[in-house]
Amino acid sequence: MKQYKIAVLAGDGIGPEVMAQALKVLDVVSGKFGFSITATQALIGGAAIDATGTALPDDTLALCKQSDAILFGSVGGPKWTASLPPAQHPERASLLPLRKAFDLFCNLRPGQIYPAFAELSPLHPRISSQGMDILCVRELTGGIYFGDKGRSDIDAYDTQRYSVAEIERIARVAFDAATKRRHKVTSIDKANVLSTSVLWREVVERVAKDYPQVELEHMYIDNAAMQLIRAPKAFDVMLCDNLFGDILSDELAAIAGSLGLLPSASLNGSNFGLYEPAGGSAPDIAGKGIANPIAQILSAALMLRYSFGEEEAARAIEAAVAKTLSDGVVTRDINPNSTYGTADVGAAVIAAI
Amino acid sequence: MKQYKIAVLAGDGIGPEVMAQALKVLDVVSGKFGFSITATQALIGGAAIDATGTALPDDTLALCKQSDAILFGSVGGPKWTASLPPAQHPERASLLPLRKAFDLFCNLRPGQIYPAFAELSPLHPRISSQGMDILCVRELTGGIYFGDKGRSDIDAYDTQRYSVAEIERIARVAFDAATKRRHKVTSIDKANVLSTSVLWREVVERVAKDYPQVELEHMYIDNAAMQLIRAPKAFDVMLCDNLFGDILSDELAAIAGSLGLLPSASLNGSNFGLYEPAGGSAPDIAGKGIANPIAQILSAALMLRYSFGEEEAARAIEAAVAKTLSDGVVTRDINPNSTYGTADVGAAVIAAI
Ligand SMILES: CC(C)[C@H](C(=O)O)[C@@H](O)C(=O)O
Ligand SMILES: CC(C)[C@H](C(=O)O)[C@@H](O)C(=O)O
Repeated sequence: MKQYKIAVLAGDGIGPEVMAQALKVLDVVSGKFGFSITATQALIGGAAIDATGTALPDDTLALCKQSDAILFGSVGGPKWTASLPPAQHPERASLLPLRKAFDLFCNLRPGQIYPAFAELSPLHPRISSQGMDILCVRELTGGIYFGDKGRSDIDAYDTQRYSVAEIERIARVAFDAATKRRHKVTSIDKANVLSTSVLWREVVERVAKDYPQVELEHMYIDNAAMQLIRAPKAFDVMLCDNLFGDILSDELAAIAGSLGLLPSASLNGSNFGLYEPAGGSAPDIAGKGIANPIAQILSAALMLRYSFGEEEAARAIEAAVAKTLSDGVVTRDINPNSTYGTADVGAAVIAAI
Repeated sequence: MKQYKIAVLAGDGIGPEVMAQALKVLDVVSGKFGFSITATQALIGGAAIDATGTALPDDTLALCKQSDAILFGSVGGPKWTASLPPAQHPERASLLPLRKAFDLFCNLRPGQIYPAFAELSPLHPRISSQGMDILCVRELTGGIYFGDKGRSDIDAYDTQRYSVAEIERIARVAFDAATKRRHKVTSIDKANVLSTSVLWREVVERVAKDYPQVELEHMYIDNAAMQLIRAPKAFDVMLCDNLFGDILSDELAAIAGSLGLLPSASLNGSNFGLYEPAGGSAPDIAGKGIANPIAQILSAALMLRYSFGEEEAARAIEAAVAKTLSDGVVTRDINPNSTYGTADVGAAVIAAI
């Protein structure tokens, strides 16, 4: 029997509650599809700061290194945001070093408007009723996030740097994904202003030559921020650098209107990966048993797919989630009149597997 | 009688058509309010590239220097975009040097959802019906646009640099504007990642001390891209650096849903300024007489207000535009069934003055 070891970093806010449901789902699918998962919990984020003084303790990092994948919950909250400088906020101080430590250069964030849930989208029905199915492919370990930076009394600077190799590897991920989807890549840049964007465009065009069946379109970031709202259906795969991907993937999530449904995967080209919901720790509803566990459950499905190659088990979870949603077993973020809680949704997914 | 000299840079696409209407409006208000405007046209953008080989000819720059303000149309189109590298595209190669030459560090872009036209917004009626009235204040001559940049065979870099003085002067504009509005400034940054954002936050907080009656809120750019869609009514003044302002002001314009209605002003702290519609040159509808001239006409009103202090004349134009819109004299971008053209809308505005 195949055995997988995962590091479970549940974190703060609703993290532990939704993680509990995801772990139950993993337990059931592993039994059904004949593999075993050893899940070891460790401290991360605000909880780790409180217990150890640091958002990513050495023990946690060591556990991650011994694991086949990381299932991440969510971190942060007003408690730490109010008292710590931004660079020490739990989300930043846990995610950035984890991405760098494991070279997680590729962040995949799907954003959909499901026809049955089009009303969740903050877009006008004339737009949302057409549907949307976008995969945002974001470069995650380069660019202005990790470039040289500094400050003096009178000024400060940040450097955005990209190498051909960094651009090429993320571009290949986007084109590979497009071949399994609707065969279109929209590459986002600001090539009329940035040197790095000019290089980005050149490298992306070169990679595109290896994928003659995929249509490549270039779009400026400002225009993309606009078109995503006006005609989201026109996008298939969006290819973005670190900063532009940060902005557009959140805009995409807002447009989907269902943060509680969106998973994400951060990959490094090996089987290893970090999987987390796109939404935050939602401290305002933590502990009430009303948080939506779907994004966390779907993140677990992505882990089965990308890290373990357990495609059937991943699909079983996704199908069970689809059935749960269409049966109307949803939390209040999806239907304000719903009386279902976190555990009800988790149980419904399990029942549907 | 007060006399003002303006440089009229009509540009490409719909630029000349909508500019013609704005000039007629200026003619009428100047007669009515007792001042005179000498408008001198010059080449800019694609038209200038075709005629002289450069997007901003020396003659044009010289005319601007002898003028009290620049009324700018729109530039660019597929003809030049297809054949020139991005850094030489007409919009980039005309606007960036003009901004730098006149130190136009402050870009003001209002974005509204008018209750009567809420249906224009791509947002769901449950959101758009609440209205939106945002002023985006964007730093326009610093940051990653103008920092050191370069490339080699294997990589490229861009530098974002901001000085205390640059941040302070744009922050003051935002707070001053807020005192005349709803007394709230949302300052956009990525202080959990960027050095320049940490400095930005510090300086903005220091400036805020001089405006105790204005509420200051900090928001990360990724969250702002999300909240602008979910709850646009919550924003009053948005204060952004050059790059974040480029992205958010276009997102804002998309949300307003009426690019043809949105003017903008680029200022330098003196009376001089550059005024242009927020929308582009719309080459697809150029020459058909159906382009919306309102954004260009409202840009002329901003010029009267900010460069000439002719507040009454500016308000007269704005009131005439409001009446024209509410009378339903609108182009097809506002009402697809409309039979009114560019000249009809211009004439209706003039009749209403
Ligand atoms: C917490 C922060 C540093 C992070 C980022 O900007 O990458 C977050 O916004 C994200 O998108 O995962
Ligand atoms: C043309 C381009 C350089 C410019 C910018 O990015 O500033 C434009 O997008 C704008 O917002 O005026």
